[in-house]
Amino acid sequence: MPFTGREMRTLITDDGVLTLSLETVTVAEPGDDQVVVAIEAAPINPSDLGLMLAAADVGTLKAAEGGALKFSVPQQRLGSLRGRLGDSLAIGNEGAGTVVRAGRNVAHLEGRKVGMIGGGMYADYRLIEANSIVPLPEGASAADGASMFVNPLTALGFVETARREGHGALVHTAAASNLGQMLQKICLADGIPLVNIVRSKVQEDILRQIGAEHVVDTSEENFRDKLAEALEKTGATIAFDAIGGGTLGSDILRAMERAAVRNAGGYSRYGSDTFKQLYIYGALDTSPAVLDRLSFGFQWSAGGWLLFPMLGRFGKETVEAMRSRVVTELTTTFASSYTRTIGLAEALQPDTLRAYERKSTGEKFLIDPTLG
Amino acid sequence: MPFTGREMRTLITDDGVLTLSLETVTVAEPGDDQVVVAIEAAPINPSDLGLMLAAADVGTLKAAEGGALKFSVPQQRLGSLRGRLGDSLAIGNEGAGTVVRAGRNVAHLEGRKVGMIGGGMYADYRLIEANSIVPLPEGASAADGASMFVNPLTALGFVETARREGHGALVHTAAASNLGQMLQKICLADGIPLVNIVRSKVQEDILRQIGAEHVVDTSEENFRDKLAEALEKTGATIAFDAIGGGTLGSDILRAMERAAVRNAGGYSRYGSDTFKQLYIYGALDTSPAVLDRLSFGFQWSAGGWLLFPMLGRFGKETVEAMRSRVVTELTTTFASSYTRTIGLAEALQPDTLRAYERKSTGEKFLIDPTLG
Repeated sequence: MPFTGREMRTLITDDGVLTLSLETVTVAEPGDDQVVVAIEAAPINPSDLGLMLAAADVGTLKAAEGGALKFSVPQQRLGSLRGRLGDSLAIGNEGAGTVVRAGRNVAHLEGRKVGMIGGGMYADYRLIEANSIVPLPEGASAADGASMFVNPLTALGFVETARREGHGALVHTAAASNLGQMLQKICLADGIPLVNIVRSKVQEDILRQIGAEHVVDTSEENFRDKLAEALEKTGATIAFDAIGGGTLGSDILRAMERAAVRNAGGYSRYGSDTFKQLYIYGALDTSPAVLDRLSFGFQWSAGGWLLFPMLGRFGKETVEAMRSRVVTELTTTFASSYTRTIGLAEALQPDTLRAYERKSTGEKFLIDPTLG
Repeated sequence: MPFTGREMRTLITDDGVLTLSLETVTVAEPGDDQVVVAIEAAPINPSDLGLMLAAADVGTLKAAEGGALKFSVPQQRLGSLRGRLGDSLAIGNEGAGTVVRAGRNVAHLEGRKVGMIGGGMYADYRLIEANSIVPLPEGASAADGASMFVNPLTALGFVETARREGHGALVHTAAASNLGQMLQKICLADGIPLVNIVRSKVQEDILRQIGAEHVVDTSEENFRDKLAEALEKTGATIAFDAIGGGTLGSDILRAMERAAVRNAGGYSRYGSDTFKQLYIYGALDTSPAVLDRLSFGFQWSAGGWLLFPMLGRFGKETVEAMRSRVVTELTTTFASSYTRTIGLAEALQPDTLRAYERKSTGEKFLIDPTLG
């Protein structure tokens, strides 16, 4: 008997209406190298929300037939979404669950708890290639394995990028996130100085508890001085920024420049010789990045940092080593925590949707379809 | 008898007052590998004005004793100028003239017309290492040789950077400048598509006259569409931007993305796979760069481009080849034109100073100290 279950879908039509719904789908029988996984845990990350809600305005939310929700997408954002108009897209980058059926070549996986990546995880069942899943270590729960790809590989990828590009210390923004905590643990283990930028005392405390030495809080009045101080101490010249919009990236580059000038001395009207790199990997602030470049000279670069192209650049061997490390340290370095676990139906309740957008609450959702 | 003459100086004191003056200096006798050059031509480029006027407000200009001029530097800009406070600095990156005295090892240079680089060219005489000068080809005037380093090597450097970083076509802003004309001639000779961005019909005509195929004018209403069209045709994925401030750089990256998406098809919420590079090499607009990065995905980089570090990266052999090409094509590819030739004293007249700041006039000044 094939498996039939729910699957969350996001659809934008030409008129700028975005519809979120749960569709009933029947999963095909697995091919020789495929498995069907009953999903038990899938995190909601900013990148999932990017696909799920696109640029829709949650304030326009309306309940529709069959539990669906409808939103308006602002006209000026439709241009960049042209490529997805009319396509009903499955959501959920990664998740974990139990293999309930396995193809001939991978029959040994039946019954195993696995983590997986590949999209379409906000569903009861997922048909997937066996090489996109990783069996969880003994004793690990589905929740433990739900976030074993994106955040862990991103955190390891930051360290790898810094190493390859010749930087000895890092800066990270929105640093109290699950990802940020992983990064801090990696940096402590590997002896790499890390300057964490957060925006509240609560977030600072989270990082201090796991051993962070350098934490600067943008809500403090002397934030810029403290940042420059931490950069002078660590010599960090590469930053990974989850926020992207506004002036924070520019502030970081300026503080790096200030530290470089202090450490080097002498005046050059073109700024210091120290090369400063800002990588933007997220869009917590969707407004434009404002770079006051005259305050940091000519030796700088700002650019996008995207996981999968970067993994491609690192090469297979490095990525394999990263994946092994994630499995080995799954419940320590790479442990994720969630503030709420909800069913698939609850994930589409108007109140829940509004909470996704309320980033300041720090809510971190995990979907468990078995809850309903 | 040693040579005595005038030398232009710029000095900022702790109180934020910038003084421009002509000092009388006596040039030392040349060492064995040095020469004294009587300067006959030195261009005023934006980078010279950067040192000369720093961030001073020309509106505050006041005449002072001995023909000196005084300006106020806005308080908020003083921080980045800390390194030069109290230092009387000579001005003028490059120039040309006649060798009037030569050291023992370079006696053959006496009487030769030469171009040179090294600062302090707004003066009657310049003592300089022989390896910082280049004898001009037969028949070339000092004016021909006055700008044989910065603009020619920058234009050649753009092409070299594009080639090394794997881009087959280029975008250039403020493209009707002397530098821009050189770049267009190089690109025509080397068969490299170039998209020129200008801000008036007059500037467009200048470029068309030397054979430019792709010229887009920011003053036209459908500028963005025309830019995207030119980028689709050429496939240009690297831009060199003299302006730096505002949204033009962002517009270029967006148009590149639009061209890439059209040429590739398919939707990715992270944007196209096409890597887009923006290099900012000038600061005609000193306001912050505003990058609406969500309109161009994650495969992009923006950074500073500075001539001398880049030449260092290219290596000696490449730079030697560039220099030879400049000498060979000095009066063709690398010809510069000026709208006004003025004496050193006139260079410090209040009206002249105001004209330097009026970028929109398109005035290009050459200083010839022999005029007074």
